[in-house]
Amino acid sequence: MIQTPYLLFLGDAPDPLAAKVAQGIRDWNPEVAKGQFRLPGCAADMGLPDMTLEEAAQAGVKTVVVGVANRGGVISPAWKAVLAEALAMGFDVAAGLHNLLRNEPDLKAAARENGRTLHDVRIPTVAYPIANGEKRTGKRCLAIGTDCSIGKMYTALAMDREMNRRGMKSTFRATGQTGILITGAGVPLDAVIADFMAGAIEYLTPANDPDHWDQIEGQGSLFHPSYSGVTLALIHGGQPDALVMCHEPTRTHMRGLPHYGLPTLEQLRDTALPLARVVNPTVKIVGVSVNTKALGEDEAMRCLEEIEARLGLPTVDPYRIGAGRLVDALAGI
Amino acid sequence: MIQTPYLLFLGDAPDPLAAKVAQGIRDWNPEVAKGQFRLPGCAADMGLPDMTLEEAAQAGVKTVVVGVANRGGVISPAWKAVLAEALAMGFDVAAGLHNLLRNEPDLKAAARENGRTLHDVRIPTVAYPIANGEKRTGKRCLAIGTDCSIGKMYTALAMDREMNRRGMKSTFRATGQTGILITGAGVPLDAVIADFMAGAIEYLTPANDPDHWDQIEGQGSLFHPSYSGVTLALIHGGQPDALVMCHEPTRTHMRGLPHYGLPTLEQLRDTALPLARVVNPTVKIVGVSVNTKALGEDEAMRCLEEIEARLGLPTVDPYRIGAGRLVDALAGI
Repeated sequence: MIQTPYLLFLGDAPDPLAAKVAQGIRDWNPEVAKGQFRLPGCAADMGLPDMTLEEAAQAGVKTVVVGVANRGGVISPAWKAVLAEALAMGFDVAAGLHNLLRNEPDLKAAARENGRTLHDVRIPTVAYPIANGEKRTGKRCLAIGTDCSIGKMYTALAMDREMNRRGMKSTFRATGQTGILITGAGVPLDAVIADFMAGAIEYLTPANDPDHWDQIEGQGSLFHPSYSGVTLALIHGGQPDALVMCHEPTRTHMRGLPHYGLPTLEQLRDTALPLARVVNPTVKIVGVSVNTKALGEDEAMRCLEEIEARLGLPTVDPYRIGAGRLVDALAGI
Repeated sequence: MIQTPYLLFLGDAPDPLAAKVAQGIRDWNPEVAKGQFRLPGCAADMGLPDMTLEEAAQAGVKTVVVGVANRGGVISPAWKAVLAEALAMGFDVAAGLHNLLRNEPDLKAAARENGRTLHDVRIPTVAYPIANGEKRTGKRCLAIGTDCSIGKMYTALAMDREMNRRGMKSTFRATGQTGILITGAGVPLDAVIADFMAGAIEYLTPANDPDHWDQIEGQGSLFHPSYSGVTLALIHGGQPDALVMCHEPTRTHMRGLPHYGLPTLEQLRDTALPLARVVNPTVKIVGVSVNTKALGEDEAMRCLEEIEARLGLPTVDPYRIGAGRLVDALAGI
């Protein structure tokens, strides 16, 4: 568990997109983000107070979170100077970088000397069990996609937020780096050893109150040859009561695989349901979440109507029109 | 790659079953097994010449293979004395134990001092790529099962042996510890990091001659909640042209999961085929391999006939009647 609140380190982000982890925290868990720290040349701005490390300490910050991607595969000396100083001042440091904080000898030494923790959220910290498939109390909803990077995390976060707004019991369960930094905990599923994937998800979504929902962050796609095994482990470990199908209507091929077309939503439904029934015979597909960012307003609405009519399922773009109808659809389950 | 030939270390095996790795090597790759090494009290016998380490060296042995499971979660001093001596004499040592050889300080030191290699085949030694899903030349056959531990490795080995007997081009591709020790190479798929599972199988089954078959060792089952993700990665990484379904007709529940029944062969067919078509639209299920060990001769034959009639697919028990009809079924592909 990463201690909150956070100071978001934006470094020298060359553009706002480089700081998308910080943006995710700012959008989805703003109460933990007390401020931002920017180096000269930083082109990203979360609209948070710019703070020195001293000001962050006064504001009660516990952890400096690297909310920006590093360039060129190295953590630059300018970054390390700030992060080492933060450790010396008593902050923990968390990051989801490909280059691990713990592999930087100076940061590792600074953490050890000051009794602080380096959180590399790409690396599992728990010896996960092998899944046992036993029925757990509580309800679980899982977002599945026709492709990777299609809005599954956004959908789960939007549903969780809407349920909390309504006073329903809900917890977002992070399975990827950004989700873990947003919530401060989770399972970095793509880095888990094969035999323990499903068990890691059982661990992440334990027995709970009968009216509590886990909103489980999806990963990959059953139709993406590189990552489909991760997706199936998520379905069988998550034991979902409800599935939401996620789609991006303008995408022409599977992410990173130009020779693979996307499946239809019907194919996704017909493939995912029998697999999910292995662990939960009453599982239902409750709705469709469409990422219509690439479409104009009229076109987006026509797209949602067309899919809703075709599949007979509530169909929304949670970004444009909210996740309310998806949450409504959970009511009967 | 583990250097051959082998001396099979049977230790103080309390019963023949404890030495099943040695038995697998003896049954499936007898030409590499020059002899066996037994400690006092050993209750296993491969029918190979008992050899001292000196005799093994004279016979040209390169690697001492631990062909027996250790008891109580420790590698005993009696074992270590022999293995350390083997390293000192210039042999490599290979094992698929849960306790790693490399975690034994005395063995690690002996290997380093003598410039020898400890092969812990449970641990991947390659930085596998992420799968790219690109079509490869050559043919691939994958055994899939209604459950784990149901005869998939045996089926693939039997088909490989039959193809080699007929002068056809075939290679058994090991994906588990026993298979790796039998062939000297392979991918320990259950120990691979989630994101690289399918890529590891692409690496294991590279482009080959158009008339060459890889016989890929299956793992897990699409219907086993603990390991299904591993199975799907194998299907999508393996890009099979042919699938053989494996079944055990007397099993009453999924291995290790008393509350999960087995799927029918029809369910397995209808689930696996659409998933396999994602990477290979022309994939076919060519036959059924039934493990009838628990049945008498008449009962076994009736069982095979019943399944063959029901599914319209060549159905054999490769142990009782050989894998010839499964190999015949590959002819048209």
